[in-house]
Amino acid sequence: MISKNKTIATEKNLIAAIRRLAAATRNPAVIHGIGDDCAILRASPNHELLVTTDFSIENVHFRREWHSAESVGHRCLARGLSDIAAMGAEPLACFLSLGLPPKLPQRWADRFLKGLHRLARQHSVQLAGGDTSSAPQITADIVVIGQVPKGKAVLRSGARLGDRIFVTGDLGASSADLKRLFSGQKLHPSRGSRHFFPEPRLHTGAWLRQRGLSTAMIDLSDGLSIDLGHICDESRVSASIDSHRIPIAPNATLDLALHGGEDYELLFTAPPRAKIPSAIQGLKVTQIGVITAKNNRAAIRLLDENGQSHPLKPLGWQHFRS
Amino acid sequence: MISKNKTIATEKNLIAAIRRLAAATRNPAVIHGIGDDCAILRASPNHELLVTTDFSIENVHFRREWHSAESVGHRCLARGLSDIAAMGAEPLACFLSLGLPPKLPQRWADRFLKGLHRLARQHSVQLAGGDTSSAPQITADIVVIGQVPKGKAVLRSGARLGDRIFVTGDLGASSADLKRLFSGQKLHPSRGSRHFFPEPRLHTGAWLRQRGLSTAMIDLSDGLSIDLGHICDESRVSASIDSHRIPIAPNATLDLALHGGEDYELLFTAPPRAKIPSAIQGLKVTQIGVITAKNNRAAIRLLDENGQSHPLKPLGWQHFRS
Repeated sequence: MISKNKTIATEKNLIAAIRRLAAATRNPAVIHGIGDDCAILRASPNHELLVTTDFSIENVHFRREWHSAESVGHRCLARGLSDIAAMGAEPLACFLSLGLPPKLPQRWADRFLKGLHRLARQHSVQLAGGDTSSAPQITADIVVIGQVPKGKAVLRSGARLGDRIFVTGDLGASSADLKRLFSGQKLHPSRGSRHFFPEPRLHTGAWLRQRGLSTAMIDLSDGLSIDLGHICDESRVSASIDSHRIPIAPNATLDLALHGGEDYELLFTAPPRAKIPSAIQGLKVTQIGVITAKNNRAAIRLLDENGQSHPLKPLGWQHFRS
Repeated sequence: MISKNKTIATEKNLIAAIRRLAAATRNPAVIHGIGDDCAILRASPNHELLVTTDFSIENVHFRREWHSAESVGHRCLARGLSDIAAMGAEPLACFLSLGLPPKLPQRWADRFLKGLHRLARQHSVQLAGGDTSSAPQITADIVVIGQVPKGKAVLRSGARLGDRIFVTGDLGASSADLKRLFSGQKLHPSRGSRHFFPEPRLHTGAWLRQRGLSTAMIDLSDGLSIDLGHICDESRVSASIDSHRIPIAPNATLDLALHGGEDYELLFTAPPRAKIPSAIQGLKVTQIGVITAKNNRAAIRLLDENGQSHPLKPLGWQHFRS
């Protein structure tokens, strides 16, 4: 007798499961989903479409002994949705390409899809297609399509001299957990965890874009020191941030808040006189610094607790890997 | 001294190379390409967008000892473009997610991108984004975005009783080469080869759609017996094809033409009175059968050389794998 838990995931079963989920959450932008050579999408009038793609590869982006299948599915889609949030846009549909290694339990694939679909349903994102294959390790590539009114996407390149720099939520929580996992600690992948179940800041991103409050925006996936560097590079500006203003997560340190990645909070700039509330729809917003120069030669400087200014090197979360 | 050929591909080098290619071929639909959280696309007025994704995984879809890097790059994009062709649509942009195994020579990655970009340029498809990662084997996932006038995409579901069934080009050439490769034969990956450098039938697909001549269409990726089955299933019809009418490639057999995949020719249906020329822009078009019933219970029947009718089982190209 074969136990249900021991059933091996097949491409056929996977496609059937994906079709069920595709039918379970609809988005009116999807004219034609799974079942033809391509999916057909229609943006709202006077909107542009946004596209983002993100890999989630076993032993690179997650480990089966650390992350539950639901967490891997959730994180896979959250990465893409967070990119949509960082443009101030609305997600419409996603496409999942999934490579299955030999002997992967069907139960793992089912729970992965459950985690992914739970987040998709929460944001009315329709699973509209994808591909399956065998692969040496679990290999997921997620494509998310979103829309935004024409010319209104919030780019990385709009920061100007004098703009203030803000972040949502707290920083460092995700990398603090990752550090614990690397040190051999066992962590329960609970729903409230920013590492295992990051919540893409779609409402906050759209709220800022609708009011025209943010001049530049990015999501914190690689870490504050790297991602603020992207805004500085694309906007050709320099920045200064204050260490004592950075909202450090309860389980984290300043170092983790500066360089740890995968927090999926939003980092944005706003003009000097723009009224940025201290919370947007319940999510804390903190000013952490200012844009200091019209070129990016000065790069990013960090003010320490004594008011001394030091250059901030873009270390990023890869720093914690080895 | 490290020879240039021995340089190992890094994600950093890869991203730099992708950015160069992204700048080399532009498509006006791409408002904002690589360099932000998402790419921004704008379809022409009164058009819908099409999305298709396809994996190309080492030792599943290609082998480094069989396929040149240029061929792998070309085939990777050709798979996606062929899906766009099968809807009668125009390709706009592509997104490449590429996972690199340890010790992959930089030269391999460069030649892969060269093969991909050559085909992209030929069809004015802009490389507009993607992702990179390390991976246990070469793992490419290509997303192609296209557009088609509203409501004009040619679906798999439009075939009607009495419609005639057509294919472009010759069938079986790709699987004939694959069979030789499996038997241990060495093949030179020449540009003219349908296996190594398949040409997506974009012009033919668009030509048929513009004239409203095709009721249903699909590209032959899995093999005639499987892909005609998809049209029958989605259109809820049955079909009969004549073995002596099937255009068999010079190096192939009837069996390979019926069940071999990766020919990337177009299979389409047209109403009884539609005038389908024997060639479209130089590409041969052959009537191979008719739609015989209003339901798909009778499935597909094959008329042999004696006029005897037999059920045609959907074997598909996987048949040739083992």
